[in-house]
Amino acid sequence: MNVADERMKPLEKASAQSVEARLIRRLLAFFGNPPFEFVLWNGDRVSPRTDPVATIHVSSRETLYDILRDPQIRVADAYSDGRVRIDGDLVALVQEVYRNAPRGEAGTLLQRVARLLHPPKHNTLAGSRENIHHHYDIGNDFYALWLGRTMAYTCAYYPAPDVALDAAQVAKMDHVCRKLWLKPGDTVVEAGFGWGALALHMAQNYGVKVKAFNIAHEQVMFARERARAAGVGDRVEYIEDDYRNIAGQYDAFVSVGMLEHVGLENYEELGRVAARAIGSAGRGLIHSIGRNRPASLNRWIEKRIFPGAYPPALSEMMHIFEPSALSVLDVENIRLHYARTLGQWLELFDASTDKVLAMFDEKFVRMWRMYLSGSIAAFTTGTLQLFQVVFASQENNSIPWTRDHLYR
Amino acid sequence: MNVADERMKPLEKASAQSVEARLIRRLLAFFGNPPFEFVLWNGDRVSPRTDPVATIHVSSRETLYDILRDPQIRVADAYSDGRVRIDGDLVALVQEVYRNAPRGEAGTLLQRVARLLHPPKHNTLAGSRENIHHHYDIGNDFYALWLGRTMAYTCAYYPAPDVALDAAQVAKMDHVCRKLWLKPGDTVVEAGFGWGALALHMAQNYGVKVKAFNIAHEQVMFARERARAAGVGDRVEYIEDDYRNIAGQYDAFVSVGMLEHVGLENYEELGRVAARAIGSAGRGLIHSIGRNRPASLNRWIEKRIFPGAYPPALSEMMHIFEPSALSVLDVENIRLHYARTLGQWLELFDASTDKVLAMFDEKFVRMWRMYLSGSIAAFTTGTLQLFQVVFASQENNSIPWTRDHLYR
Repeated sequence: MNVADERMKPLEKASAQSVEARLIRRLLAFFGNPPFEFVLWNGDRVSPRTDPVATIHVSSRETLYDILRDPQIRVADAYSDGRVRIDGDLVALVQEVYRNAPRGEAGTLLQRVARLLHPPKHNTLAGSRENIHHHYDIGNDFYALWLGRTMAYTCAYYPAPDVALDAAQVAKMDHVCRKLWLKPGDTVVEAGFGWGALALHMAQNYGVKVKAFNIAHEQVMFARERARAAGVGDRVEYIEDDYRNIAGQYDAFVSVGMLEHVGLENYEELGRVAARAIGSAGRGLIHSIGRNRPASLNRWIEKRIFPGAYPPALSEMMHIFEPSALSVLDVENIRLHYARTLGQWLELFDASTDKVLAMFDEKFVRMWRMYLSGSIAAFTTGTLQLFQVVFASQENNSIPWTRDHLYR
Repeated sequence: MNVADERMKPLEKASAQSVEARLIRRLLAFFGNPPFEFVLWNGDRVSPRTDPVATIHVSSRETLYDILRDPQIRVADAYSDGRVRIDGDLVALVQEVYRNAPRGEAGTLLQRVARLLHPPKHNTLAGSRENIHHHYDIGNDFYALWLGRTMAYTCAYYPAPDVALDAAQVAKMDHVCRKLWLKPGDTVVEAGFGWGALALHMAQNYGVKVKAFNIAHEQVMFARERARAAGVGDRVEYIEDDYRNIAGQYDAFVSVGMLEHVGLENYEELGRVAARAIGSAGRGLIHSIGRNRPASLNRWIEKRIFPGAYPPALSEMMHIFEPSALSVLDVENIRLHYARTLGQWLELFDASTDKVLAMFDEKFVRMWRMYLSGSIAAFTTGTLQLFQVVFASQENNSIPWTRDHLYR
């Protein structure tokens, strides 16, 4: 039997494998032998189980030792730049990683240390502008390829699991509007409006006037043009400014998918802004990715995709409401809806690979595929949650009697 | 004009009034002149506004100086033992007190100091037994006079505001059962079962088996007899024991109106008990009085009515769920329903005054009237909230897709 033959039968000849193959085998055993297969640069295969969900090809010894130094960041980096290739089900692979991640007190401690060593980027007025620009201003044409017609870049709401993406985004906007019990003539202020879909939808379908704030320049331009084209430019004002500069009184305050970028240190101020905006008679809604317990965002996502981002636990979200004595009326967790939304985005993204390649490069495509796949895994494993929180002032007794109106 | 005449026209002749009348006038001015009228032992009247909601008769100088030393406790004590008489709308009077109570940081600080000086009674296993006995074991016949047919001593749920008490209590139990998506054959464990209405309802209407825990002896006896009479003794087991001794696995964990008596220091353990009970596939619900922000219970209520009780803010409730990585799926705040429930209880209580007098005495009647009226005021002013929190393990993906099923 020559060397080439031996490489064809690695499972039977483990003892003849390289030092690195044996190291990987031991590491996998330590983590309970997840269903991964590794193929090394020298052809060595390590596959502790017969049912691997994905095969991870490591291109060089240097790559292996590089990723072992800080796996949470460097595996995804190596995947992005092609030094690691993954065949098979990327979502299932990340799900296994999340399912095997430490979740007890030890995990929390490790995560706290990690947060101390790698604090998220600060969201000062200037810092927020830089952090937001990094992600949201990379090109409206790019996002238009895979976000669907609404360009809503937040968790959709599926009245039934088989609803199509665009319909589910519209259903989400209606769900939010019903939760805010909007009436014709109401005024609404929105903090962080994305490409402006929700403000537009409110003005078109609920007879309200909306003032919407956002600091991502490309999004502001896009939203203004869309509102003009839809003929509601007089009822939606898109303002390129920070939510902290919201002034005046409104019947409703709404923020969908901005809190992730606000930063814990600013929650109390956000609450003051919202409380001031709605006064004693208004109501508010904050929709955000969250957690079951405090923990920092996956460090690769924070570093490469969303600088300054942090998904709060509910106890942390309460720092928004409690100092201002806002009354939390309703919290809904729709994490499985976000897994579905992301799945539909990923399908569209994959179907648009050629166009994305023409705009960026292969590294960008792989990076975004990792981000979307990893996010699906995070929501299906309960690593991330999606909270919608409805609130009002303590003295507001005109709150709805039940939540029945949301489901009629 | 003689002295008697002058006493008839106190408003025009304030300067001729007693030192105490002038003191009360200044105190009322300091608190923004709430719509109260005072009548003193000497006939002096102080009424800064023409629309008083209630008239407070103070029987002696000693009583006045006594209540001024610690109003939160001593006004209600003096009312209970007849040294202070209140004519008019007791609920409206307490509402005014709550509306004028400090709510900002200063208020919180004062409340924190008060909590340090007057810590709630500890809820150790023995302490809980003593605290619970104090309130719940004073007589099933007494509670039967005004709780309605279900004997449910927790916030009811009114599909519409004009629903009758018994129907609203049944609707609450159905609301809870739907939130737990019970299926025939499921097993349920209940922590704190009161007089056993919910466990009975579940067994009779949802085809489930229930193990229910409670440490109030009189309630346990009552509940067992009721289940026997209803012929479901084989499907409901009422256990006289502390929730901390719950063992075994169940499809659902439920606790309605017990958390108020658990004590913050035991929340993490309660979460461990619930997480262990439902495992990875079950679900749970905790229904509790709460707050918009951390603050201790009204001290008179804690001292005279509910020793050891504490209504948590949501941030505090999260100490139950987060250490065990339980996933909060749904929070509903139905505080206005509790104001309505208490209003209906108070009506029945007032209609049963003669019977209550025969069981206890006038002091007891007034004490309970103050407790029920003050509680109505607390819920209508948003001083207290009522939260229902639904939760499941992080990995439970068989959670309902939407909340639609609650409203069909």
